[in-house]
Amino acid sequence: MTYSAFDHPYLSGLLGDEAVAAEFSASADIHAMLAFEAALARAEAVHGIIPAKAADRITEACRAFSPDVSALRRSVAADGVVVPELVRQLRLIVGGEAADYVHYGATSQDVIDTSLMLRMKAVAELFAVRLGNIVTVLEECDNEWGERGLMGRTRMQAAIPITVSDRLRSWIEPLLDHKDRLEAMDRDLFAVQFGGAAGTLEKLGDRADDVRATLAEELDLADFPQWHSQRSEVADFANALSLVTGSLGKFGQDIALMAQQGDEIELAGGGGSSAMPHKQNPVAAEVLVALARFNATQLSGMHHALIHEQERSGAAWTLEWLIMPQMAGATAAALRLAGEIVGNIRRLGRA
Amino acid sequence: MTYSAFDHPYLSGLLGDEAVAAEFSASADIHAMLAFEAALARAEAVHGIIPAKAADRITEACRAFSPDVSALRRSVAADGVVVPELVRQLRLIVGGEAADYVHYGATSQDVIDTSLMLRMKAVAELFAVRLGNIVTVLEECDNEWGERGLMGRTRMQAAIPITVSDRLRSWIEPLLDHKDRLEAMDRDLFAVQFGGAAGTLEKLGDRADDVRATLAEELDLADFPQWHSQRSEVADFANALSLVTGSLGKFGQDIALMAQQGDEIELAGGGGSSAMPHKQNPVAAEVLVALARFNATQLSGMHHALIHEQERSGAAWTLEWLIMPQMAGATAAALRLAGEIVGNIRRLGRA
Amino acid sequence: MTYSAFDHPYLSGLLGDEAVAAEFSASADIHAMLAFEAALARAEAVHGIIPAKAADRITEACRAFSPDVSALRRSVAADGVVVPELVRQLRLIVGGEAADYVHYGATSQDVIDTSLMLRMKAVAELFAVRLGNIVTVLEECDNEWGERGLMGRTRMQAAIPITVSDRLRSWIEPLLDHKDRLEAMDRDLFAVQFGGAAGTLEKLGDRADDVRATLAEELDLADFPQWHSQRSEVADFANALSLVTGSLGKFGQDIALMAQQGDEIELAGGGGSSAMPHKQNPVAAEVLVALARFNATQLSGMHHALIHEQERSGAAWTLEWLIMPQMAGATAAALRLAGEIVGNIRRLGRA
Amino acid sequence: MTYSAFDHPYLSGLLGDEAVAAEFSASADIHAMLAFEAALARAEAVHGIIPAKAADRITEACRAFSPDVSALRRSVAADGVVVPELVRQLRLIVGGEAADYVHYGATSQDVIDTSLMLRMKAVAELFAVRLGNIVTVLEECDNEWGERGLMGRTRMQAAIPITVSDRLRSWIEPLLDHKDRLEAMDRDLFAVQFGGAAGTLEKLGDRADDVRATLAEELDLADFPQWHSQRSEVADFANALSLVTGSLGKFGQDIALMAQQGDEIELAGGGGSSAMPHKQNPVAAEVLVALARFNATQLSGMHHALIHEQERSGAAWTLEWLIMPQMAGATAAALRLAGEIVGNIRRLGRA
Repeated sequence: MTYSAFDHPYLSGLLGDEAVAAEFSASADIHAMLAFEAALARAEAVHGIIPAKAADRITEACRAFSPDVSALRRSVAADGVVVPELVRQLRLIVGGEAADYVHYGATSQDVIDTSLMLRMKAVAELFAVRLGNIVTVLEECDNEWGERGLMGRTRMQAAIPITVSDRLRSWIEPLLDHKDRLEAMDRDLFAVQFGGAAGTLEKLGDRADDVRATLAEELDLADFPQWHSQRSEVADFANALSLVTGSLGKFGQDIALMAQQGDEIELAGGGGSSAMPHKQNPVAAEVLVALARFNATQLSGMHHALIHEQERSGAAWTLEWLIMPQMAGATAAALRLAGEIVGNIRRLGRA
Repeated sequence: MTYSAFDHPYLSGLLGDEAVAAEFSASADIHAMLAFEAALARAEAVHGIIPAKAADRITEACRAFSPDVSALRRSVAADGVVVPELVRQLRLIVGGEAADYVHYGATSQDVIDTSLMLRMKAVAELFAVRLGNIVTVLEECDNEWGERGLMGRTRMQAAIPITVSDRLRSWIEPLLDHKDRLEAMDRDLFAVQFGGAAGTLEKLGDRADDVRATLAEELDLADFPQWHSQRSEVADFANALSLVTGSLGKFGQDIALMAQQGDEIELAGGGGSSAMPHKQNPVAAEVLVALARFNATQLSGMHHALIHEQERSGAAWTLEWLIMPQMAGATAAALRLAGEIVGNIRRLGRA
Repeated sequence: MTYSAFDHPYLSGLLGDEAVAAEFSASADIHAMLAFEAALARAEAVHGIIPAKAADRITEACRAFSPDVSALRRSVAADGVVVPELVRQLRLIVGGEAADYVHYGATSQDVIDTSLMLRMKAVAELFAVRLGNIVTVLEECDNEWGERGLMGRTRMQAAIPITVSDRLRSWIEPLLDHKDRLEAMDRDLFAVQFGGAAGTLEKLGDRADDVRATLAEELDLADFPQWHSQRSEVADFANALSLVTGSLGKFGQDIALMAQQGDEIELAGGGGSSAMPHKQNPVAAEVLVALARFNATQLSGMHHALIHEQERSGAAWTLEWLIMPQMAGATAAALRLAGEIVGNIRRLGRA
Repeated sequence: MTYSAFDHPYLSGLLGDEAVAAEFSASADIHAMLAFEAALARAEAVHGIIPAKAADRITEACRAFSPDVSALRRSVAADGVVVPELVRQLRLIVGGEAADYVHYGATSQDVIDTSLMLRMKAVAELFAVRLGNIVTVLEECDNEWGERGLMGRTRMQAAIPITVSDRLRSWIEPLLDHKDRLEAMDRDLFAVQFGGAAGTLEKLGDRADDVRATLAEELDLADFPQWHSQRSEVADFANALSLVTGSLGKFGQDIALMAQQGDEIELAGGGGSSAMPHKQNPVAAEVLVALARFNATQLSGMHHALIHEQERSGAAWTLEWLIMPQMAGATAAALRLAGEIVGNIRRLGRA
């Protein structure tokens, strides 16, 4: 059963991506949430909030813990978030005195947002690498065909001659910028979320900042004060994803137009038709355009989520859950397809 | 693995809906696509395009056929659509002379769009029924508490006293309109798609219209000429879905505000918190707002898909696949949650 | 000074439309708001709410009244709506006892929403006529060149030959549907808004419905109970506008592609370039695509406005003011430009 | 006549902003376009492309030139851009031999995009200053009331007590981030646009880069190679604007909720009602929400504009013209209104 083409049993053949899909599996989310709980316990032990033995027990339990997903599902229906039930189950597994120290001072949003940040960080790193790979192949195209001619086209009309290199630069430069942006985000943007019930870490008193700093370090995330209702970094990451797919969409649109024009590009691959055996459709190129428009659409929703009232808004926050994974899925598909297209270029330009 | 909260292993506890999810399963799609192929064969036999025996064989094969989904997935990557491979597999199963008559005169888009229409029609019917059920309960609320008082609130300020009935009417009337709209669509909007390679049904000559009419009748869909590049009806259905979730979003926002205000509503249910045991959060009400904003966002993408160039646009069409199922999923969740909320109303207004 | 290209001192040469711009002038809005106040007085006199003499005086004053716009501007900054100050000024002009009966039982939203409906109705009628005109010319094209050949193109590749008529029908049919839709809306959708302070017409007691019915008749609008917080009809009209521009966007995209392809269309007109004297750009065709994407974008905002909390939401309602006029402006421009394009078609297809 | 509330004769009282409106006046655009033409001439003279005397004549003529706007308007209808006619008129004014050197090697897009960058840079600087001013007042509020209590509210329910300072930090921190972001953009993002007919500056040979560098310096813009079809920086600036309005929207939503709650804030100002004399509506707060949702909506269109095909896309580029000024107008209004609200805070929190 699937609503999303990104993990649909057959549409994922075109629109899926295994590496990134793995980051959005329930098990990846659970793994990251448990990483938070374990790291929290360790950070709290370091600063004397909880006994070291409890931290050890919690860490050990998290490593082995495989939750009852059906029970998680039932509880989300009532609570709106999975964490109360996850924590309840984890406490049972931890057992003894240590159980009281599970999730000490934290709230559901800390766990869920931190899990998202851990997985978005991994995805950002992967995307930066793929952007680099695409650029490498395009640079090779530039070396090979860069001096050949193309007809420059403006406003859907032949304009004046340009070179293949001119067109390639318009594809390459934005991708280099986006790679730099994702790498900078990878260093600085993905922050731990830790604020407690209403953002004040009221249970940790004057050791709150120290615990958070250690927690961030444990998880290799940036250390910032809680951002429960401040969603700019999430919206900004969504913007970065849409810039990537937007630039790849321009690339895809250009490839599709060159394919229709006929004489300026030669591509291997191309899709068949059930009705017209002669067809070699530039499917991947068209799909890049669809993915670009998909993310441009979704970005709006992520910005509506900035209007996050009071200390926590179920309405604004849930909107992010409905949208953010899909923007990552669209970006993954676009990078994969763009990689395939550049690998399939057999010729650009005219002699 | 899942990108969509609507069929996520645990988030679906809050955001899923089993009946509608079933319509978006791969098996429901395959079932509908095979229904098309079988009905096409029968319609073509009726009008002497193909032998009756071939139609019988094809119908029989479709009934029993369970395709190799992995092979479907691999082919979508190359072809951009699942149908060439599905048809190839079906021909093997049909075998003999009849195999040549499978999918005669049709194109992938005919199969995929018709499958969507069959499933959207079922979903529209279901949604109309649920709207009616919600209205029934709200009417009961009106009977019970309608004369009690509420403070009317305009521009986030107390205004003048109104009655519970006044507020209930603002919730009920739009839902009745949307029910009527969906019922009208159920009768008239969901059309068979049948146009062949480039929309001209060139293989069926002067019997094309007759075949299409019989095909529509077989499938209980409306009979219209092909609409391969004319996507208004799809966009209009998306609008209808967003009107539903928008009205339910206003309802949810009002419930959430009443819950925060405290004295004008009493609800059973309410979600717990991992950090604050006293909390009874109006989770479902907030989620209705999120779902409304989700669909308002998606509707834009469905309208961009109207810009569907030439006889078939891979870019515009794929964008629909990425979005439409999700709008249905969001509407299903909203109707389910609204049904739960109205069923949980214990009191409205002041004595 | 202008933020909107639709009434920009020079961009309006491309993107403006005088007839529709007139409906969005401040004077058209004031005229319509005063029409409401006068009609309200007359309707209230008919049903004995106010003296007939007062109604006569108010009607006479409205006819001649030209408000102090600077004062209106200053008051909107404080009140968020123009009506309190407009009514204050009108009362001064009306003078005497009759002044007490100005705006009796009404609220600002009644005036502003009714003004919008009056002007949207006029615009819908105009759009239906223009759609008809465009279809007429396209039908003439069909008569003249319909049998000539075009290469059908699917997925940005040559597919199989089609006729000019096939392509024309894909342009014509949606426009006929949209014309029908707008004409139906013209008859049924545009309703008077009349609900008083918090939607209960509390000042009119049991004569409220009668007064509203007469008011609707006076203004030639449909009679429905107040829809202060029920914004579906407005959102649905926005959908209708975007369906129009979306279909015209598909038409524009096809024309632009045919212009780039070169051999299947001959158009008079075409824009020059500051750098390339040989250029004849299909400017109008490209702008149709831009206008379609503009309205597809805006439609989302109009649907977010459905989440209109309580009896009146300043946030949701103001969002409509920011967007709806522009959707009308975009549709007007699209109809004008499409009319120019079809009038400039010198040849379609190949012999 | 006006479609946009931002410069509407009376709605601008609420939604306008004079400083930023001035940057979007036709005269500001013309002034900036002439600044480009004059700076281009000077840069070309420095590098020996045109005679110094011609550059002097052109600079002098630009200073005094007041174009025939009606003629500009007529030409935009045909050309899609204002520059061919502007340059034609300018050449007449320059006269003599120097006329041949006007706009040498440039194209319309160079002029129009550079004009936009000049004005966006000014607007970014202004916005950064206003953000700083708002933060200053909020910091004063923190000093005065920071230790007082508020009820923290999560998921539309009372949660645990927090301080006024906690809530203020959630408003302040994002604004500081946005200020930093705009200041960084002011230094690095706003680049000159200079590429010639199809982006290759074919008329300037090997002196193209030098001319562009000098041109950038003349205009105090960043020097980057042409970005005719690479729209990421424009889309990224749109993102920055929406982050500002989004954070101000969260602020506005909180203020509106506090105003409805009643006991945690005291504000001067507040709007009246035509029907309910007792009302003091938190109009500005609600409008901040509307402006946030407006920009979140528009941002999508600016990202669709990334799909800018070939060397110049009339469709994608025109979409930017329809949207970008309005995002700036919305941000200006939001900053103005937020400044008014913070200036009107008389009390926060409970003793």
